[in-house]
Amino acid sequence: MPGVGDKIDVLDHGFVRLDAAEATDLSVVNGARVSFLQIKDEMDDRDEKLIRFLMREKHASPFEHNLFRFHVKCPIAVAREWMRHRWSSFNEHSLRYSEAIESFYVPAAEQVRTQTGKPGRYTFVPMEEETAEKVRAMMEAQYRQAWDTYQSMLDIGVARELARLVLPVGLYTEFYWTVNARALMNFVALRNAEAAMWEIRQYGEAVEEFFAAQMPSTHKAFVEFGRVAP
Amino acid sequence: MPGVGDKIDVLDHGFVRLDAAEATDLSVVNGARVSFLQIKDEMDDRDEKLIRFLMREKHASPFEHNLFRFHVKCPIAVAREWMRHRWSSFNEHSLRYSEAIESFYVPAAEQVRTQTGKPGRYTFVPMEEETAEKVRAMMEAQYRQAWDTYQSMLDIGVARELARLVLPVGLYTEFYWTVNARALMNFVALRNAEAAMWEIRQYGEAVEEFFAAQMPSTHKAFVEFGRVAP
Amino acid sequence: MPGVGDKIDVLDHGFVRLDAAEATDLSVVNGARVSFLQIKDEMDDRDEKLIRFLMREKHASPFEHNLFRFHVKCPIAVAREWMRHRWSSFNEHSLRYSEAIESFYVPAAEQVRTQTGKPGRYTFVPMEEETAEKVRAMMEAQYRQAWDTYQSMLDIGVARELARLVLPVGLYTEFYWTVNARALMNFVALRNAEAAMWEIRQYGEAVEEFFAAQMPSTHKAFVEFGRVAP
Amino acid sequence: MPGVGDKIDVLDHGFVRLDAAEATDLSVVNGARVSFLQIKDEMDDRDEKLIRFLMREKHASPFEHNLFRFHVKCPIAVAREWMRHRWSSFNEHSLRYSEAIESFYVPAAEQVRTQTGKPGRYTFVPMEEETAEKVRAMMEAQYRQAWDTYQSMLDIGVARELARLVLPVGLYTEFYWTVNARALMNFVALRNAEAAMWEIRQYGEAVEEFFAAQMPSTHKAFVEFGRVAP
Repeated sequence: MPGVGDKIDVLDHGFVRLDAAEATDLSVVNGARVSFLQIKDEMDDRDEKLIRFLMREKHASPFEHNLFRFHVKCPIAVAREWMRHRWSSFNEHSLRYSEAIESFYVPAAEQVRTQTGKPGRYTFVPMEEETAEKVRAMMEAQYRQAWDTYQSMLDIGVARELARLVLPVGLYTEFYWTVNARALMNFVALRNAEAAMWEIRQYGEAVEEFFAAQMPSTHKAFVEFGRVAP
Repeated sequence: MPGVGDKIDVLDHGFVRLDAAEATDLSVVNGARVSFLQIKDEMDDRDEKLIRFLMREKHASPFEHNLFRFHVKCPIAVAREWMRHRWSSFNEHSLRYSEAIESFYVPAAEQVRTQTGKPGRYTFVPMEEETAEKVRAMMEAQYRQAWDTYQSMLDIGVARELARLVLPVGLYTEFYWTVNARALMNFVALRNAEAAMWEIRQYGEAVEEFFAAQMPSTHKAFVEFGRVAP
Repeated sequence: MPGVGDKIDVLDHGFVRLDAAEATDLSVVNGARVSFLQIKDEMDDRDEKLIRFLMREKHASPFEHNLFRFHVKCPIAVAREWMRHRWSSFNEHSLRYSEAIESFYVPAAEQVRTQTGKPGRYTFVPMEEETAEKVRAMMEAQYRQAWDTYQSMLDIGVARELARLVLPVGLYTEFYWTVNARALMNFVALRNAEAAMWEIRQYGEAVEEFFAAQMPSTHKAFVEFGRVAP
Repeated sequence: MPGVGDKIDVLDHGFVRLDAAEATDLSVVNGARVSFLQIKDEMDDRDEKLIRFLMREKHASPFEHNLFRFHVKCPIAVAREWMRHRWSSFNEHSLRYSEAIESFYVPAAEQVRTQTGKPGRYTFVPMEEETAEKVRAMMEAQYRQAWDTYQSMLDIGVARELARLVLPVGLYTEFYWTVNARALMNFVALRNAEAAMWEIRQYGEAVEEFFAAQMPSTHKAFVEFGRVAP
């Protein structure tokens, strides 16, 4: 089971690393038990039941007394969805302060897909291998050219904040993300879900794996009651 | 003075439009006067003094009882900084749900600049006109190519959410932004400021203009006490 | 139907008054339609369906582009539960800045009740009328005494912020509450609900009435999909 | 220096206990250095300078990647001010779920004070000892009576949620409070300050002591730049 300091590789160059955690099932139990002035040092058998009760009844606040700090590397397109989660703290690699790193997301051949259907209920179908490889080559060529233009502008002396404008949203970025279990569950509920883009879903899975390892009873209850944040 | 329904053009293709407002100096005054159970129907002379007092002493909460709803068009690079403001509501044009619009930001020649100095205290110097025009041409060419690749991928049938990966952060996006005066002042303090990227600063100015028109006494106090959000 | 400026009486001395609103079903529709760059000036028939879709699929952000500003008078015990709602703005009558008003909540005889069962699933049974009247008399006597002690302390010159310490949580307070429809629905889901204290539920009902009048299609969808905030 | 598990006594019966912390100066440094992709395992001499830079320039987000979880016992009047801090998580002793504990705040004789001046700039002057003792006796008598009425109502069978209405805001309550350093500094800036009520200021001091022990460089910079949250 992945823990603090571990890194889960995601996509071709990305990762999710758990940088720190102060997150236990006991923190949930005590968050609830303070209502009765019955704080504990250890979980017992009734406490798993308590966590299930809180999850089912959507008593959400006891799930907030904890912290997960992640270090993430993902494409900008994925980061843009991620940073819409506001009950979170972020710090990100700045392309004003430093140069970009040459690292772009190219989907594996089996992930090159077409899209049919309506918003929220798209069906994605893998393309034939030959087409997929062609698409991958198009993306790679486009990325390379964007990178060359970026470098040429920097060579002439253009400010980094302007030169970056030609860089595509397939470029990888890195950031710190700090979040509590309640907001993390909301992220997982929305992003490790069928309606989510396949790429962010891989990140959602990695985040969920770390969560399940730190707070097994909470995760179990989350799954049992429909993977909805309380 | 710009009001609800008005649009301020920003950069080459962008804008800030005030879609709705429920924002008056009186709402600040009453937010404070409810502490004394002395709510009013109209401002009087002492109330401007009260607003100055609240701003100076950083009594921030009375500045929250109001709403500005903006419709914004700006480059993705600008939107990414904007959406880091969490005490806000956003909905944005989705490149999963619909196709991109061919609209890219190319800085005017006098805005093509070099960068020297340290983070937070950069100095930007305009490049010579000839170089500036060359840079603009490089950007335009790069944008065109990215657009062509995007279109080719769509033509083959690649899903929009994948095809978008080659689109650059210089692409324009559009979004709704709803915010109260306290959070708006924080935005203006950070983004209509010397340390901000010139491009977002133009948006910060437009937002500030709408703010000053709706809440003149609040804006005056904001400026008087150093353009810091209370 | 109650609108801006109207006041709904609640309990023996309380009320909920809608001080301002910038809240329409159209704001929800446009919050969603900006994803497709299809903003509108008026609702049409398909839009009610869109709102139902957003509610069912828990696409929550389009419900945030609006404002309700309420003026509320309620017992401190009720205000304490209310102010746990953090995606909200509050300003309250201050007992440091001004004196208390002699106004206390005494439940009507039919609301004097006993409690059985477990947390979250209590059953409340009305007491016999004679007992109920006795309880009401006990509360009134206790309130009167607390008030007298408060006044005596003020008479001697004790600071208001100290004198208030003897005042009971049955004392009425007043505050401004500004909130968007998403947070309002969360309030109503939790407070106009069976598990809520009967007294706050009356306030939840009043808030819901104002909400239903301003945003009828949104309210209808909220009810249809189980009275859960999206 | 107080650390995790330690308890600082406050007022006559209250305390602040640090239940857990994941909060280091290094987390601030890394929150900033991720902008340059230069994450570290240990602080060095330049990093204290970096923290001072971030504080002075109000680069606030790097101060959010950490957690303090406190267990607090304080009078309800103090808790009410505390819980207005929204970038925080709270769970509190519930007087619906369990009975109150007989524990009330009576100020020490030297804290019985009069109040003169205007809101925000009150002057408080201690009362003469004889008067002070008289005031203390009045409060104690009033508390005792409220307690007796509360108990009598419970004895008759009145629901706890109703019986509590007679309890005064001088009653002690307990809660869990989880917060990051940025929000903690905002709390300390407002509550361990001259304009704050003396009683909450004692809690502000205790919180600040724990903060200074966990994040000494951050605390030093906080003090150096005027005790204002970044």
